[in-house]
Amino acid sequence: MKNAIVTGYSSGIGKAICDELIEDNYNIIYLSSRLEDTKTLEFEVKDLLKNNDIDLLINCAGVGVFQPHEEISISKIKELIDINLTAPIILVNLLLRSLKKTKGHIINISSVEATKHSKFSALYTATKSGLRDFSLTLFEELRKSGVGVTTINPDLTVTNFFDDLQFEPSTKEETYLLPETIAKTVVTVLYTKGVITDLTVRPQKFEIQKKKGF
Amino acid sequence: MKNAIVTGYSSGIGKAICDELIEDNYNIIYLSSRLEDTKTLEFEVKDLLKNNDIDLLINCAGVGVFQPHEEISISKIKELIDINLTAPIILVNLLLRSLKKTKGHIINISSVEATKHSKFSALYTATKSGLRDFSLTLFEELRKSGVGVTTINPDLTVTNFFDDLQFEPSTKEETYLLPETIAKTVVTVLYTKGVITDLTVRPQKFEIQKKKGF
Amino acid sequence: MKNAIVTGYSSGIGKAICDELIEDNYNIIYLSSRLEDTKTLEFEVKDLLKNNDIDLLINCAGVGVFQPHEEISISKIKELIDINLTAPIILVNLLLRSLKKTKGHIINISSVEATKHSKFSALYTATKSGLRDFSLTLFEELRKSGVGVTTINPDLTVTNFFDDLQFEPSTKEETYLLPETIAKTVVTVLYTKGVITDLTVRPQKFEIQKKKGF
Amino acid sequence: MKNAIVTGYSSGIGKAICDELIEDNYNIIYLSSRLEDTKTLEFEVKDLLKNNDIDLLINCAGVGVFQPHEEISISKIKELIDINLTAPIILVNLLLRSLKKTKGHIINISSVEATKHSKFSALYTATKSGLRDFSLTLFEELRKSGVGVTTINPDLTVTNFFDDLQFEPSTKEETYLLPETIAKTVVTVLYTKGVITDLTVRPQKFEIQKKKGF
Repeated sequence: MKNAIVTGYSSGIGKAICDELIEDNYNIIYLSSRLEDTKTLEFEVKDLLKNNDIDLLINCAGVGVFQPHEEISISKIKELIDINLTAPIILVNLLLRSLKKTKGHIINISSVEATKHSKFSALYTATKSGLRDFSLTLFEELRKSGVGVTTINPDLTVTNFFDDLQFEPSTKEETYLLPETIAKTVVTVLYTKGVITDLTVRPQKFEIQKKKGF
Repeated sequence: MKNAIVTGYSSGIGKAICDELIEDNYNIIYLSSRLEDTKTLEFEVKDLLKNNDIDLLINCAGVGVFQPHEEISISKIKELIDINLTAPIILVNLLLRSLKKTKGHIINISSVEATKHSKFSALYTATKSGLRDFSLTLFEELRKSGVGVTTINPDLTVTNFFDDLQFEPSTKEETYLLPETIAKTVVTVLYTKGVITDLTVRPQKFEIQKKKGF
Repeated sequence: MKNAIVTGYSSGIGKAICDELIEDNYNIIYLSSRLEDTKTLEFEVKDLLKNNDIDLLINCAGVGVFQPHEEISISKIKELIDINLTAPIILVNLLLRSLKKTKGHIINISSVEATKHSKFSALYTATKSGLRDFSLTLFEELRKSGVGVTTINPDLTVTNFFDDLQFEPSTKEETYLLPETIAKTVVTVLYTKGVITDLTVRPQKFEIQKKKGF
Repeated sequence: MKNAIVTGYSSGIGKAICDELIEDNYNIIYLSSRLEDTKTLEFEVKDLLKNNDIDLLINCAGVGVFQPHEEISISKIKELIDINLTAPIILVNLLLRSLKKTKGHIINISSVEATKHSKFSALYTATKSGLRDFSLTLFEELRKSGVGVTTINPDLTVTNFFDDLQFEPSTKEETYLLPETIAKTVVTVLYTKGVITDLTVRPQKFEIQKKKGF
């Protein structure tokens, strides 16, 4: 049975991915550390590596903020960078020796915002573009070792990602993705003979709506 | 039954895609015009549109050349641009009204060379990068109309693409892709609820070999 | 005295570049062939190379079209590809041996549209993105030979480029660039100790206006 | 007299930039806080804003590491992200209201590594690519406000950046850039009528050397 670590497993895309992986007979290892707390995270990961090897790491946890840049608090800036960029980079760092042993796979869930320059997305884009180019660069390093690296860049997906944002996907058909769709691209990645290094998926149509009360 | 046009259908990736589409119950319409001969191509396409609508266009035909740029003949320069870039753009142009009617899908097979800058690939990269950004830009235009647009960027795939080149993929495992793998990403694209706009697929390992006699 | 070839020299950015180069003591060689007529172009260039070496090639001629893709005529598609992409690639091909002798410089004027995906720009973006990645890839090939390669990507510049388009830059301050500004970046490129490989320049503000009568 | 903040002012590219700015009559404000210490940094910046407005922010401080990713320490990972990415983003955040008042300019010194995927550069590329796309995205947000945003992506420049690395630029001519060259591109940026949003500068030739003792 293969071992997978999936961050952000409790809801949204991460949860949908876990559901697919379980169906595919993966053993999911649920980390309990907060991703910003790198000390605890390091301790937890090193501990579990004593008795386990990891075949699959999926960095899926992510936070968004879309506001005029001067209005974002410094703690929010740090939170986004910590969760969206630093934690995935550290997890890869901690797990890489094990992933080399298993000739495993790393999948980083970035965002369509890593592929364009949208107003009020500067900070978010920085973290997601950093994560995407981290992955693409890492693959060059890991080709020989047999570890695959994939970035998936989803556009608007219906999850609790929007809970604290001022907008959300429209409810009209074809204007949003479902978490299951992203989970299925993960399965495709895992079953492809070769490495899908980069995959962007978007709804056919574009329509967002401002939320009431904001 | 859905109608598909696939260029480059006679061998390699194009042929593998046709095999998959036929299995999926597509009716393949095989164009007989040479892609460089845009007059005949236009005539043929306009003629078939009189009695058919098109659900799927896959621009797969492609030619490569990897040499010091000053050593490439002008006729070769024109051939690459004509086949790799101009023909796909013209086919989209001719078929777009029909594709809008069917809410169809356009898939352009670009190349990993559209995503990096490799020595001796300047001309080829120009055509493939042009094709990739054509697709990504076109999708912005076609979102409302319900037409999907996808670019697939394959790395070294074992086909007759290498027949006239001085190198070819190594025969070692994991150093090349099979046409069937690219064909399967096409199937994934068609069955995804949402639009995979961009997908890059590469062999895990990198190794090419110089051909004897060159 | 150094010899420069500048396409599109008769107006707009090309003319402004020539003015700067003349001031900097360059001898401008004015090609008389139409850029689409590659046979004549080849003949003219080969003829002048009998008695001259070239120190600087600036591909500046360009044509735009921004319409729904299905409304563009096939002859317009070919014109854009021929002038924006094929001609620069052929000119580099013809002049490269001479440029290697002089350790010269190639400057390709691409467009900001090569850096993003704007609605109704698919064809234009294809040509300009192709040109930009041609340049960036070519530089990798030419580093050893001592030939510099630069892409300049200007945003809206007040020239006759807009004569046949349905929109034009606003007349408000800071919403457009002047051809002289682009010409000055060329001078900067030539006087930099090292190679500016890629430079994007944009107006501070964004505002375009629809033209009456369209 | 205009006020400029330049991080990394004590040596290398930052020092060369300060020298140019002083010649151009800028008043340089030297921050004394360590960039990782965001609490102190915030306090210092807020304090100086009480009596000063800022016309120019240049984020130039940067740290590099080029090793197999699993061999990098977690503290080094954090240091790179803190200095190369988080600090610039926080400084922009703190200074943006002032920069809007002065219609000032932000220049972020990224790296050529933000434009490609080099082996053993995954972490560094993540920070520099994040910074570059932060800048390009921020410009979209700030166009109306009159604040310019520029990314400069230098390749190998002779500075103490290499002190702790296992390689350094070759000493052969044309294989490295001088800090003065980057400083001059900054001056070009400041004197351009329009906004140079992105500029990559590289040595003509490529040659690095391994350092003894590593």
